[in-house]
Amino acid sequence: MACYFVTGGAGFIGSNLVDRLLADGHYVTVYDNFSTGQRSFIEPAIRNSRCRLIEGDTLDLPRLSAAMHGHDLVFHLAANADVRFGINHPRKDLEQNTIATHNVLQAMCSAGISRIAFSSTGSVYGEPTVFPTPETCPFPVQTSLYGASKLAGEGLIAAYSTGFGIRATIFRFVSILGDRYSHGHVFDFYQQLSQDPTELRILGDGSQRKSYLHVNDCIDAMLLAIEKAEGHLNIFNLGVEEYCRVNDSVDWICAKLGITPKRHYTGGPRGWIGDSPLILLDTRRIRSLGWKPNLTIRAGIEKTVEYLQQNAWLFEARAAA
Amino acid sequence: MACYFVTGGAGFIGSNLVDRLLADGHYVTVYDNFSTGQRSFIEPAIRNSRCRLIEGDTLDLPRLSAAMHGHDLVFHLAANADVRFGINHPRKDLEQNTIATHNVLQAMCSAGISRIAFSSTGSVYGEPTVFPTPETCPFPVQTSLYGASKLAGEGLIAAYSTGFGIRATIFRFVSILGDRYSHGHVFDFYQQLSQDPTELRILGDGSQRKSYLHVNDCIDAMLLAIEKAEGHLNIFNLGVEEYCRVNDSVDWICAKLGITPKRHYTGGPRGWIGDSPLILLDTRRIRSLGWKPNLTIRAGIEKTVEYLQQNAWLFEARAAA
Repeated sequence: MACYFVTGGAGFIGSNLVDRLLADGHYVTVYDNFSTGQRSFIEPAIRNSRCRLIEGDTLDLPRLSAAMHGHDLVFHLAANADVRFGINHPRKDLEQNTIATHNVLQAMCSAGISRIAFSSTGSVYGEPTVFPTPETCPFPVQTSLYGASKLAGEGLIAAYSTGFGIRATIFRFVSILGDRYSHGHVFDFYQQLSQDPTELRILGDGSQRKSYLHVNDCIDAMLLAIEKAEGHLNIFNLGVEEYCRVNDSVDWICAKLGITPKRHYTGGPRGWIGDSPLILLDTRRIRSLGWKPNLTIRAGIEKTVEYLQQNAWLFEARAAA
Repeated sequence: MACYFVTGGAGFIGSNLVDRLLADGHYVTVYDNFSTGQRSFIEPAIRNSRCRLIEGDTLDLPRLSAAMHGHDLVFHLAANADVRFGINHPRKDLEQNTIATHNVLQAMCSAGISRIAFSSTGSVYGEPTVFPTPETCPFPVQTSLYGASKLAGEGLIAAYSTGFGIRATIFRFVSILGDRYSHGHVFDFYQQLSQDPTELRILGDGSQRKSYLHVNDCIDAMLLAIEKAEGHLNIFNLGVEEYCRVNDSVDWICAKLGITPKRHYTGGPRGWIGDSPLILLDTRRIRSLGWKPNLTIRAGIEKTVEYLQQNAWLFEARAAA
């Protein structure tokens, strides 16, 4: 039994992780400001006596430090996960991803906690030149404020690891989907199609190649890594080693819904500034620990569509936010 | 004739750059908070009618934005350049190197300025595995808060370059020395020896291999790069392609001073946590533009000792700070 602190524990990935940790018999503190997290996501968890909820912001350092005492490991998942709209509010990534990560590290030092697991992103590779892209690829150039802010978070964690003896595991995710998924590609397509099944607007030319991982596979990998990885600082790509084109994902969503909308493309190889035309991560490092994903991209997308069909309230919650 | 804005323009490298820009006939605004910059460094410059001094902090975004209007290019040199004491005040690097760089970029956007040159550091390579280390070396792991904060600055600049059309040149320096040099290795050794020429305390075992570049060579390279580099985002290592051991630098300083102190080593391959045992940058990229350094490491160290001998006031200014 261990005692875990999960920032962003009411979010998409966070709440799935919390459920799993509780199911495995651990103690969990959820720390979330509910800016994008949902109370309903943690309703099952907070009924468990081993779960504690603290409503708080990672930018509130005194509150964060006080809350963190007595835990064994911090899963730092709280973030602004909105890659696409970075240039509309550039300071948000800086504050919620970089400064917040610094706060988490400072709080850990003052609370005497020596282990962290961090959700970074394949976006830190920018537009890589090597595919599948390994963790040790050439020094990348940032192409999005989101990627830059997560890279900065990684750098802080590595420096704290060296300077303060913190043991860290950093995960570079592809896009994650599954139950409680509530932003991104598939969400947007589904939302458009539920409003009007005859038309679909697609950013870019539909040829962008993307990789997706189901949240259950993602959590399997994270828990395996924090159990087995032996280094002081471990960095793992997490993804399936395949990609689909945006057009493929549209095909699968439409087939699942039994519709054939007219497709309108905004054009160009990138859906937005900073969109990467190809994401495909080399996952040999995490697979060498014995992990492999159970779901293909297609199966992950189909299960996600099923979830969205059963949870129409999410769209209202997002619209209200 | 161009109009340049130099953050940290009263600092060591900044004030040398300002003098050169004025000598070349340009207009220059010095923006400095005098936290480590020295008024005497810019005394010659501010007598020139083409030079304007604004006392301000890069963390003061409204002041910075207002000051920046009407310039062609920003040299962003203001920084906490204190690599060694990062773990004593971890938030300083975050604020002065990362958040400050974000402010500079935001101010540029609001002032409509589209070009930036940035002083990054070879410390972003952490402890590299390839020597000489090229700009495209494997994705590095940060080992110091200083390196991490500069890497974050680089990432922000690259993301702004993609997102907002800013044309950027990033310089990864080795240690710079020369006139107005006022912190680091040679400074510390000289200071110790001027207090007591018979004893010298050396951090580490003296075998650390370091590279130094004279500030005049550094400025030659920066000005050449902003004139000739054609990319939208350019990254250049700047250094001499040789190293000396810490013990060599002590030999040269002592020979110059005509003394033979007893050496006391604190031991170990690193002088402090995050100290890199070997720094040697691959500079083919900047040399391909036609640059080469005029001074060897030894000549640079000797000229720096001469400068320190003539400027004892610097030690009092540092002690008072």
